[in-house]
Amino acid sequence: MVTTTATTGRLIVAGLGPGDPAQITPAVHDALLQANDVVGYLPYIARARELLECTGAVPRTDIAWHASDNRVELDRARQALALAAQGRQVVVVSSGDPGVFAMASAVFEAIEAAPTEAAAAWHALDVQVLPGVTAMLAAAARAGAPLGHDFCCINLSDNLKPWPVIARRVQLAAEADFAMAFYNPRSRTRPEGFVRLLELLRAQCEPSRLLIFARAVSTPDETLQVCTLAEATPEMADMRTVVIVGNSTTRRVGRWIYTPRYYGNAP
Amino acid sequence: MVTTTATTGRLIVAGLGPGDPAQITPAVHDALLQANDVVGYLPYIARARELLECTGAVPRTDIAWHASDNRVELDRARQALALAAQGRQVVVVSSGDPGVFAMASAVFEAIEAAPTEAAAAWHALDVQVLPGVTAMLAAAARAGAPLGHDFCCINLSDNLKPWPVIARRVQLAAEADFAMAFYNPRSRTRPEGFVRLLELLRAQCEPSRLLIFARAVSTPDETLQVCTLAEATPEMADMRTVVIVGNSTTRRVGRWIYTPRYYGNAP
Repeated sequence: MVTTTATTGRLIVAGLGPGDPAQITPAVHDALLQANDVVGYLPYIARARELLECTGAVPRTDIAWHASDNRVELDRARQALALAAQGRQVVVVSSGDPGVFAMASAVFEAIEAAPTEAAAAWHALDVQVLPGVTAMLAAAARAGAPLGHDFCCINLSDNLKPWPVIARRVQLAAEADFAMAFYNPRSRTRPEGFVRLLELLRAQCEPSRLLIFARAVSTPDETLQVCTLAEATPEMADMRTVVIVGNSTTRRVGRWIYTPRYYGNAP
Repeated sequence: MVTTTATTGRLIVAGLGPGDPAQITPAVHDALLQANDVVGYLPYIARARELLECTGAVPRTDIAWHASDNRVELDRARQALALAAQGRQVVVVSSGDPGVFAMASAVFEAIEAAPTEAAAAWHALDVQVLPGVTAMLAAAARAGAPLGHDFCCINLSDNLKPWPVIARRVQLAAEADFAMAFYNPRSRTRPEGFVRLLELLRAQCEPSRLLIFARAVSTPDETLQVCTLAEATPEMADMRTVVIVGNSTTRRVGRWIYTPRYYGNAP
């Protein structure tokens, strides 16, 4: 009996996009409509409920909503896995794309570190990741096309890696002339990180390098600020901001910022 | 009269996602329903038509479909801008996300290089970019979460940049221990690029490094192949493949591949 229910449970890690319900894919919407349980950080649970309400779609079941605080990703992942192992259809909601600094890795970390008694059931689960529009791409789209050439993506958050690792990556990324997107530029436990980042960038890039501070893109709180590296200040970023740093060829055309597809001579 | 129509024209560059209609955002769907003209590479035009047909939604106007061949991105951008400058509602369709190695940069390149007689009208246009699910994120989701930590994204295509620039970027990205996503690994004009890429990676990364060859993700032609760097061969990639190279911590858990959020000691 336990075996039967364990194999019918399913866990979907779904990306809600940057904020606007019109940026949520139909695949994610359908997954929510099929769910028994939806697990996530409080504001993302609110966003998922709002989606179902504003579209008037009727879920297949009564959904149990499991909202948790931020910074408990592993606990949330274990809760979702335990529910799915009971045979339930579980959706873990994540902002943006679940595979970019979000819940998908946390779920696989939890499976890898499963308690002995749960390991077999968690490994047997049907786990699916449904992609979404990640914050840097929503931000880039609002600004023009600053990530239209090779780029990298770095999370400045918290204590998941030592600062020297971040500093080295930024230095090498600048040498490679990648455009760069920074998530969580000013986290609660590392408020000084973005100050240090600007220092690192100033040591390697020209003062006219273009930066985009994109906050809460596609929500009513959206702001978009473009400036040069010389003009940038740490206060321009907060926890809801994605910062995009252009490469050496990133430029303005009218009110847009874009990076050409070519590098060196135009084709 | 010319002025009036010029200012009411609009150009939307819209991302159709990786292939599955269920991965197209409602915002993009709505843009197609409002369009007078849809401009794009032939298979993407087909995908946009299929979306409208399979959803049974009725466009606001008779849509004029403008399909063109590959490798004429700038011509396509100019055609779309000229139509919008006539006052039409134009959608340029792009695969994946239009801002990642796709049509958004081409449109801004065309605006920057506008013919003198068109420059004022093209700069005055309402241009919007609607993001989508880009191929690397769809591929990552299918495999697990290989891009769950810092990563970079490199286009191996064609003749848009000299090979030494690519080689240097790959070398620096490996030093930074970024996971890497490669678009267009085997392009028509540079078939040897992927052979060279494997040589570069083998010179810097351990033979057990995990690679994912994700082809035509979310379409009926989808294939997903996971192997080590030692096992990888150039034939595993073609023009429809995205190749993801893990960082040094990327691992298997059960049938999934993921990169932990942390680096160094687990939190």
